Amino acid sequence: MDRVSVTQRLAAEFLGTFWLVLTGCGSAVLAAGFLSDDDVHLGIGFVGVALAFGLSVTTMAYAVGHVSGGHFNPAVTVGLATARRFAWRDVPAYVVTQVVAAVVAAAVLWVIADGQQGFSASGSGFATNGYGDRSPGGYSLLAALVAEVVMTAFFVLVILGATDTRAPRGFAPIAIGLALTLIHLVTIPVTNTSVNPARSIGPALFAGGDAIGRLWLFVLAPLVGAVVAGVAYGLLLGRHDDPTSLEEATAA
Amino acid sequence: MDRVSVTQRLAAEFLGTFWLVLTGCGSAVLAAGFLSDDDVHLGIGFVGVALAFGLSVTTMAYAVGHVSGGHFNPAVTVGLATARRFAWRDVPAYVVTQVVAAVVAAAVLWVIADGQQGFSASGSGFATNGYGDRSPGGYSLLAALVAEVVMTAFFVLVILGATDTRAPRGFAPIAIGLALTLIHLVTIPVTNTSVNPARSIGPALFAGGDAIGRLWLFVLAPLVGAVVAGVAYGLLLGRHDDPTSLEEATAA
Amino acid sequence: MDRVSVTQRLAAEFLGTFWLVLTGCGSAVLAAGFLSDDDVHLGIGFVGVALAFGLSVTTMAYAVGHVSGGHFNPAVTVGLATARRFAWRDVPAYVVTQVVAAVVAAAVLWVIADGQQGFSASGSGFATNGYGDRSPGGYSLLAALVAEVVMTAFFVLVILGATDTRAPRGFAPIAIGLALTLIHLVTIPVTNTSVNPARSIGPALFAGGDAIGRLWLFVLAPLVGAVVAGVAYGLLLGRHDDPTSLEEATAA
Amino acid sequence: MDRVSVTQRLAAEFLGTFWLVLTGCGSAVLAAGFLSDDDVHLGIGFVGVALAFGLSVTTMAYAVGHVSGGHFNPAVTVGLATARRFAWRDVPAYVVTQVVAAVVAAAVLWVIADGQQGFSASGSGFATNGYGDRSPGGYSLLAALVAEVVMTAFFVLVILGATDTRAPRGFAPIAIGLALTLIHLVTIPVTNTSVNPARSIGPALFAGGDAIGRLWLFVLAPLVGAVVAGVAYGLLLGRHDDPTSLEEATAA
Repeated sequence: MDRVSVTQRLAAEFLGTFWLVLTGCGSAVLAAGFLSDDDVHLGIGFVGVALAFGLSVTTMAYAVGHVSGGHFNPAVTVGLATARRFAWRDVPAYVVTQVVAAVVAAAVLWVIADGQQGFSASGSGFATNGYGDRSPGGYSLLAALVAEVVMTAFFVLVILGATDTRAPRGFAPIAIGLALTLIHLVTIPVTNTSVNPARSIGPALFAGGDAIGRLWLFVLAPLVGAVVAGVAYGLLLGRHDDPTSLEEATAA
Repeated sequence: MDRVSVTQRLAAEFLGTFWLVLTGCGSAVLAAGFLSDDDVHLGIGFVGVALAFGLSVTTMAYAVGHVSGGHFNPAVTVGLATARRFAWRDVPAYVVTQVVAAVVAAAVLWVIADGQQGFSASGSGFATNGYGDRSPGGYSLLAALVAEVVMTAFFVLVILGATDTRAPRGFAPIAIGLALTLIHLVTIPVTNTSVNPARSIGPALFAGGDAIGRLWLFVLAPLVGAVVAGVAYGLLLGRHDDPTSLEEATAA
Repeated sequence: MDRVSVTQRLAAEFLGTFWLVLTGCGSAVLAAGFLSDDDVHLGIGFVGVALAFGLSVTTMAYAVGHVSGGHFNPAVTVGLATARRFAWRDVPAYVVTQVVAAVVAAAVLWVIADGQQGFSASGSGFATNGYGDRSPGGYSLLAALVAEVVMTAFFVLVILGATDTRAPRGFAPIAIGLALTLIHLVTIPVTNTSVNPARSIGPALFAGGDAIGRLWLFVLAPLVGAVVAGVAYGLLLGRHDDPTSLEEATAA
Repeated sequence: MDRVSVTQRLAAEFLGTFWLVLTGCGSAVLAAGFLSDDDVHLGIGFVGVALAFGLSVTTMAYAVGHVSGGHFNPAVTVGLATARRFAWRDVPAYVVTQVVAAVVAAAVLWVIADGQQGFSASGSGFATNGYGDRSPGGYSLLAALVAEVVMTAFFVLVILGATDTRAPRGFAPIAIGLALTLIHLVTIPVTNTSVNPARSIGPALFAGGDAIGRLWLFVLAPLVGAVVAGVAYGLLLGRHDDPTSLEEATAA
């Protein structure tokens, strides 16, 4: 933490995670199923929501990745620490900041969504993650668990690989954001896609009830996937001489 | 204004803002809800409109960003001036050029749209921004205000961050255009998405009536958001030694 | 024509134009309105077709742009010659190659499309361009003319700007391809979008009848737009010291 | 194989091919035709599936392309060997690894998909490739053959061109991934799109029956297309002095 101050780094993580939850979850709540007055489906569907989550990361990684590394996700922070690309002592401050930002973003989204008559956070689901009867497609706990662990593992793997010193410079935010888009394209029907405990916690607090009771999976599974990826990258693909940080990989 | 002439810079802003309004608003007016003769929905929906607005900025920022900085938006110009990345004395000429370009673009769009039988600018909405009964989803004034302020603030923040000297060179037009796409993915249902006073003024003059009466919000809210971002960036993330301009960040 | 041979350059133009027509028109003919057995609309719609045309240019500009400059379009060739970025003496060979490639691509597309029972090139429209009763949305001749001239002018302007020595290196194929996607997002309902005489000629020969009778507009309007852009760029935005070619701008 | 070990290279090919099949086929199986409880179509359609296949390659090519070259496809491996960009002696290990990874990915996808009541791999098609009555649009064997040969040939051509030393550095994963997206936008209705024998074999083993009986075409046609491209590139476009590898083209 020499080039930039701790305050700047945590501000960057706050802004990025806020942006991820506001726009990712916001696209799902506000725009996914929009019908015109004539019942023409103009909504953005799962493709639009998948794009929104990914673009939130790509845009903020270019904007503030050079300040904080652009994690915006406790699982990413833990995965990078596991792979020794990030200091364990900085993990708690990052994770707390990310979770607070997600809650604040969900609150702002609630203010906007509540501007439409008939809105109810608990009734609409409010972009919460779930399994079983709270999975969009009714997928089982096992399916949800496998999906979240595997997808988070590959998300962290793409992050580690695209920010490796051997990868071309400057492209990491594109690769990482598009990986998040891709993950949503596949698994929204299964769990509404988390791979990010902060993203799951924020909306759940506003939806309440069952959404909170099932949060455990969306905290646990992403963290497990991230740790697996952090260990596997070094074993399978890594070089031990020159680890790089995301700050450098997204810097000029 | 040494490397290029004032005329060249204003020409670039004119072309870019014209392109943004012609294609962004044009995609909404001409293509969003297109049905085939068999009533199959081939239209581009809100995803397509969101892509159109974003791509208009990405393409023109690569094309003429090296000439004018590629603002195409009075809120961006004011936000950059607030953050001391752009000279306040050049703001009026930029803003006037942008607004004139938006009006001319709306006129050209009107000529094309009027080539279809039954077209009426006031009846169709003509891609104007609105709140209350002129919000696509019927969102309240408060929701519209919050959405426009917050979204413009983050748009300017992405611009400031992606053109920071610490960010990788050449990628700013991608990050900025995709940020505009992302903003549209979320807020078209709320206000039809402005974050750009020029984009709001152009079509409103042709739609007339209520559309003009509600323009105040789409001038005021983006400017407030932009100023907030311009101040916040320096306080939270900035370095005070070497501010960069968009011209340099989009240059070879 | 020193670094690569004439044969290599014409081969590159052939492959690129073939690819543009096969995939752009192919996406429209084969995939735009696909319904599942249960009548769920899985087709790609105009968004998918717009992406296809744009991606055909982005992919081939990276693949062979360093050989031929990646025009794939007689209007682009003429526009670049007008702006003195391409030698007039090389225009005829480029244009003939592009038109031949478009016809061959339409033939291959016909072979594939004919593999579905009930296919008829004239009945389906075969992705031809049109106005009046052959415009997808029934747009008038005037609307079609304005759309094609303005869109081609801005397409060539983006090409000239993104390959200017002042623009960042390597990004031109992204900017140019996305410009073509953007143009399709807006104007497919008006003319089915040409901005490329070769793309219009290929399918029209197979659809026959009216499609051929209206080809004049889709040859004339793009060429007019391209010449306007070629002149305007130098007047409004250009520097006269160091014109660049697309070969260099897309080279390593 | 000097800079990285054989194990690392094969691990990279395993992870990339696994990711391609899990997310590409997964998006089709889990998300393509998703309907909400109110029968609003929120599914990703063929556009989303096309994006998924392409993004799987772009993301993994940035992540591990610098380790293995990022083939993830036996046809690509053979095409590169034909063009003398890859050692023939390394082909068998790459191809076996890719096929095994595709089978494992299909197994993981099966576990997730089976978490929804009523799922049946044979009944759903499980994203297998086919022609005739197993083509999504009922296309003939001839149409399928032409589509797969031509599309694979151009896919390999884009790969060879975008990784040529004359092409701009770092952009190859974008060009290559978007080429795969483009190919899917056009040919999903014809064959469900293969251009990759490993991608065809994995799901077919789980769907069984006819899917296996028609695998021959999706092994043969991509390989033929790849060999044609490998020969044609050198003849039509190539320079014989400095062949590059994908490792270098995707390296920093």
